[in-house]
Amino acid sequence: MSDLLRTRISSTPAMLAVFSDDATIAHALAFEAALAAAQAAEGVIPRHAAEAIAQASATIRIDPAALAEEAALAGTLAIPLVKILRAELQGEAAAAVHRAATSQDLADTVLMLQVVRAETLLAADLARVCAGLWVLAETYAATPAIGRTLLQDAMPVSFGLRLAQAAAGIASAALRLKSEVAGNAKVQFGGATGTRAGLEGKGSAIAKHMAGALGLTVDVPWHARREGVAAIAAALGILIGALAKLARDVSLLAQNAVGEAKEPVIAGRGGSSAMAHKRNPTGCQVALSAALRAPGLVASILSGLPAEEERGLGGWQAEGPVLAELFLLAAGSAEAMASVAEGLDVDETAIARNLAAASMGCDIGEGAAIVSEILAHYRKG
Amino acid sequence: MSDLLRTRISSTPAMLAVFSDDATIAHALAFEAALAAAQAAEGVIPRHAAEAIAQASATIRIDPAALAEEAALAGTLAIPLVKILRAELQGEAAAAVHRAATSQDLADTVLMLQVVRAETLLAADLARVCAGLWVLAETYAATPAIGRTLLQDAMPVSFGLRLAQAAAGIASAALRLKSEVAGNAKVQFGGATGTRAGLEGKGSAIAKHMAGALGLTVDVPWHARREGVAAIAAALGILIGALAKLARDVSLLAQNAVGEAKEPVIAGRGGSSAMAHKRNPTGCQVALSAALRAPGLVASILSGLPAEEERGLGGWQAEGPVLAELFLLAAGSAEAMASVAEGLDVDETAIARNLAAASMGCDIGEGAAIVSEILAHYRKG
Amino acid sequence: MSDLLRTRISSTPAMLAVFSDDATIAHALAFEAALAAAQAAEGVIPRHAAEAIAQASATIRIDPAALAEEAALAGTLAIPLVKILRAELQGEAAAAVHRAATSQDLADTVLMLQVVRAETLLAADLARVCAGLWVLAETYAATPAIGRTLLQDAMPVSFGLRLAQAAAGIASAALRLKSEVAGNAKVQFGGATGTRAGLEGKGSAIAKHMAGALGLTVDVPWHARREGVAAIAAALGILIGALAKLARDVSLLAQNAVGEAKEPVIAGRGGSSAMAHKRNPTGCQVALSAALRAPGLVASILSGLPAEEERGLGGWQAEGPVLAELFLLAAGSAEAMASVAEGLDVDETAIARNLAAASMGCDIGEGAAIVSEILAHYRKG
Amino acid sequence: MSDLLRTRISSTPAMLAVFSDDATIAHALAFEAALAAAQAAEGVIPRHAAEAIAQASATIRIDPAALAEEAALAGTLAIPLVKILRAELQGEAAAAVHRAATSQDLADTVLMLQVVRAETLLAADLARVCAGLWVLAETYAATPAIGRTLLQDAMPVSFGLRLAQAAAGIASAALRLKSEVAGNAKVQFGGATGTRAGLEGKGSAIAKHMAGALGLTVDVPWHARREGVAAIAAALGILIGALAKLARDVSLLAQNAVGEAKEPVIAGRGGSSAMAHKRNPTGCQVALSAALRAPGLVASILSGLPAEEERGLGGWQAEGPVLAELFLLAAGSAEAMASVAEGLDVDETAIARNLAAASMGCDIGEGAAIVSEILAHYRKG
Repeated sequence: MSDLLRTRISSTPAMLAVFSDDATIAHALAFEAALAAAQAAEGVIPRHAAEAIAQASATIRIDPAALAEEAALAGTLAIPLVKILRAELQGEAAAAVHRAATSQDLADTVLMLQVVRAETLLAADLARVCAGLWVLAETYAATPAIGRTLLQDAMPVSFGLRLAQAAAGIASAALRLKSEVAGNAKVQFGGATGTRAGLEGKGSAIAKHMAGALGLTVDVPWHARREGVAAIAAALGILIGALAKLARDVSLLAQNAVGEAKEPVIAGRGGSSAMAHKRNPTGCQVALSAALRAPGLVASILSGLPAEEERGLGGWQAEGPVLAELFLLAAGSAEAMASVAEGLDVDETAIARNLAAASMGCDIGEGAAIVSEILAHYRKG
Repeated sequence: MSDLLRTRISSTPAMLAVFSDDATIAHALAFEAALAAAQAAEGVIPRHAAEAIAQASATIRIDPAALAEEAALAGTLAIPLVKILRAELQGEAAAAVHRAATSQDLADTVLMLQVVRAETLLAADLARVCAGLWVLAETYAATPAIGRTLLQDAMPVSFGLRLAQAAAGIASAALRLKSEVAGNAKVQFGGATGTRAGLEGKGSAIAKHMAGALGLTVDVPWHARREGVAAIAAALGILIGALAKLARDVSLLAQNAVGEAKEPVIAGRGGSSAMAHKRNPTGCQVALSAALRAPGLVASILSGLPAEEERGLGGWQAEGPVLAELFLLAAGSAEAMASVAEGLDVDETAIARNLAAASMGCDIGEGAAIVSEILAHYRKG
Repeated sequence: MSDLLRTRISSTPAMLAVFSDDATIAHALAFEAALAAAQAAEGVIPRHAAEAIAQASATIRIDPAALAEEAALAGTLAIPLVKILRAELQGEAAAAVHRAATSQDLADTVLMLQVVRAETLLAADLARVCAGLWVLAETYAATPAIGRTLLQDAMPVSFGLRLAQAAAGIASAALRLKSEVAGNAKVQFGGATGTRAGLEGKGSAIAKHMAGALGLTVDVPWHARREGVAAIAAALGILIGALAKLARDVSLLAQNAVGEAKEPVIAGRGGSSAMAHKRNPTGCQVALSAALRAPGLVASILSGLPAEEERGLGGWQAEGPVLAELFLLAAGSAEAMASVAEGLDVDETAIARNLAAASMGCDIGEGAAIVSEILAHYRKG
Repeated sequence: MSDLLRTRISSTPAMLAVFSDDATIAHALAFEAALAAAQAAEGVIPRHAAEAIAQASATIRIDPAALAEEAALAGTLAIPLVKILRAELQGEAAAAVHRAATSQDLADTVLMLQVVRAETLLAADLARVCAGLWVLAETYAATPAIGRTLLQDAMPVSFGLRLAQAAAGIASAALRLKSEVAGNAKVQFGGATGTRAGLEGKGSAIAKHMAGALGLTVDVPWHARREGVAAIAAALGILIGALAKLARDVSLLAQNAVGEAKEPVIAGRGGSSAMAHKRNPTGCQVALSAALRAPGLVASILSGLPAEEERGLGGWQAEGPVLAELFLLAAGSAEAMASVAEGLDVDETAIARNLAAASMGCDIGEGAAIVSEILAHYRKG
């Protein structure tokens, strides 16, 4: 029941791995180990129980397919996973597993562990996109080209300014994503109704230990307060849109009648099953497809915000796969556009020909200065 | 890189199989075989070439993971698949593979083959949902219950009417889906630019053969005319919403303070990792989650409608995974609500108690007659 | 507090009038008059009361601004409107106003009266779009042009086929809309909880009278069954997408470097505040803007489907403005593209030049025959 | 062609005024005046011309209806407005109007002037919502209530914690909106293709003057870089969702069978046209309706991000009405929930009764401490 053919074409192996079953299970076990260690540190469970849980979490092998069947029946991953983990243990250790925690504590924490890794991974490809564009922007900062508005020839622009603007949008969106992840990748630990009951008043201290161990930030429980998840989703939607702006431009510039820039030639990339002569803008296709899909995914997460009471029915449960999809699409888009930006095939002759055809002169105004200003302001991003 | 834990919880194994890599590859090979057979029937390729292609398509084993990598590089499934199939053949047979076809011919036809199977599968669970509800509607057609509007007690209603209305919505949505699939599950065959060039004028006849062999309907090429796909997507979105209306009602009725109806007890279903006493409306959760995700997915497909020229860049390529996701969610929702409808645990005492508490009498007006009217009109659906 | 500058640019005066305050009030009064007449016909209220209500409904003048303030306070239009209407009457007539009806009966019926008028209005402009395109499709059925796929030159196509395909999409979408409106423009009459209580068993007969008088179809109450509204919304979303496909193509063809077709010259249309020489594709802009907005609006309506119990909280109340917005956008798009289709400025020289530049010959395969097939199949639409 | 009945019910008169035709025209004239003043300050146009433009901008009366017709024809507001303004002036002053500017410079700047005013207005009602909730959170910080998860009774919670969490969500969303507006409410000034051509190298200085005069921030031109607009839209979507979370809870708590809290009694509010006894949660209805509509609107704006080249076709033109709609919905929701929060009718007897019925004791764990932590962290927001 794999669906690589549907997912791989729009994403990367590395990002698929971040959200793979194996990663999910590993993070879930890490949650249980961190929970036990934190509770032992605060004296809520015996230290040897925490050590046994850590040991079992590190060595247990869980079959994802079987676990998925049980999770589907239970309606949550935590119940079967905790059962399996407990079965590995005895006595106090078995009893101490998942103590005072609820399914959503595990689910939300696992999601945030994946979010942090996904953002880091993505940032690397985004840096490649921008680095490629900054070099091109500088190279062509003073190269006049005909500017186009509403898809019509307008007045001259500098070719570098066009690329600098696209890069500025991506850099700015990447920063917003990084900032929202940093602010909202919080450990979740509240227990059944978010009161941290049954912990002798040590719940807050336990949450701090867990956050430290897992590399997440800490907050009071946020089971029914999903603004952080929504903000990460929105930041991804904006980023995917910014990458697609570059793809839109490259695909328009690559039209045969325009020819100012093309995707680089990569063996096996961009062919046609019907026309051997064609060089399809396949990287742009990935980025534009992603941008058609992302807005609806962001809307899905926004729709779940009005959660019911202490923990909602249906809303937060829908977030995981949707947020994963957004990261998968962003990764596919970023990798595709990184290749495009790094190897963009610019045709100065075509640029000059199109400019001449427009008969609008070649005054690029403050175009080169604006490129410098953009580089100064956005390049570090 | 599997993601069963994300997908299985919201869908069914049977529907996951419909959109699995194995199914996709099998349909793609069936497309090539049907194309060759149709071209042989019209004398465009030799009969023995078609037979060899059919033979190879039936016996070849393709590794989905390797194919996915090549498809991701090429930007389309057809290119590596055709290459692999050709490598199995020689001479005229190899040359005849995929003759005069384009990648999108294969992609669209495969998608429609999956759509037809998915609708059939879904219809069975939808019939279960409705059958369960029709019985309940008849049973409680004259049972007065307090009606609620804007989440406030209003005037009496019949308990059966409430369920009959939910069933009518689902039945009506199921019919729309069936009708849109019947009307729009068309073979795609147009070649590079939808002109059926290179076929000696026999393209239309070839398309008819293919449609017959594959169990699809026939039309002129529709590469950049995606209304049919959008209509199927919208019908799925409406269906998922109709199923969630039932889920919304059941989850409200199941509240402890209301208690008029509950999901049936199923071993392993609806537990809580923190509270052994709880009986969560897990079926409703699946349906409500699906309804939070579906509208955005429908929007994604609508966003791709303004396709560029003969075959667009990014739009149709985004449809496959999104339409698959809609069917996966619909299947999960339908199966979950089938169990709920078939085993709904109705508490007449609670119904009577809540009615009495409202002090609005027990006049259900034409409630029972309306149930009969609904049964007469929607039951066959 | 008018907002013509935001709405007029994307719609037409005629469609704005359909959804204007004056029209809304007129339809609401027509609902009350039809309700009273139907109840009198069935002997539920005195005939003279119905006549007085009809008379008052026909002559009363209601200030929209004051009514809007009261409706905003009440949360519904019906309460203040009924109060105003009752104040015009005395005794039995006053008491008979809105008898056994609920606010949503009025709101839904008014919306459907507007939907019927909106569809009729829209159909006229859609017919203009298609008529213009059918003529062009015939004219250029055999004119070879370079076909483009994934925004790259591919193989030849017939110029007429390109336009025929766009027209087929629009015609097909217009038919779906007409069919969904015909099937779902139903009178709403169910009373507080949809049981038609308090009507001596004559509720069904009264609903039939009302439907006849108002030109709507009849069904059992559908307060919490919103599939019909969603289907109309989805059909509009598909239509707006189909219109934008034409706009996408025209705007691409109108690029200076391509030049195969342009929007017609219309005085005052398509200028630039910065560049006197420019001829902007302003009609395409309207249609493409509409297509960016429509998918989200459709999603909003789908999101409201899981209505609570007998009449929901928040869902159906959100539908009116969103459905109106979809019709407004569709009208703006249809009118804009009607002008474009009727006056499309085709440049055969540019078509020939681009074809020659592609060096792909001029074999258009079955292009002309496909145009004929499309005309035969879709032209009546 | 007014549509108060559709818009007023979901918004406030003050926010409707922010986006009214009069406000739009006033801001457009302010843009032209500021542009001229800045150009005069830099010596690009004569000082007396700037003074005449300022004078004319301050005194001219423009008919919105006529302007809307011309704007609809032109496809942009700027062209007719500049024409009207020029007609008021002579010689150098007439020639200096809109010098080196483009339509989008005016449109974007006007939108941002409205965004700034809208955010300020909204912030006041959001402060009321939070202030009301903080008081309630403190009052009931230690009041045990049954907590509910997945719509089922779970473990106890403190009633104040429930409200504190809702408030924290709103406060956090309000801060994000304020921050995105502060960062992205930028003057737009770039001329036809964003190069600030024709200004003797003084374009950057002129933009700074304009930003200062208009109270906006300054950046290089951002015509085709719409991340800022999208971020504001997303922040509004998140805010509307956070307000609806409170509405969801209040509407569930107000159910007759639960009865823990109700909207305050306000004369004329929440009645029913069919049932005099009912007290509908009308404020919650406004907030929940807004939350059904907002996600699709955010998606619309995200969809427009991949703008074409220097200034796009259709995307940015769609943003104005959609962003306005989001602010209108947010304002309606905030005002409605401000009344609810300030006057929430809490029933401690019902809270105690429901808690007792659940038989889960009354241990609220660290509930009160978490309330304090939330107050310390989010209250200033």
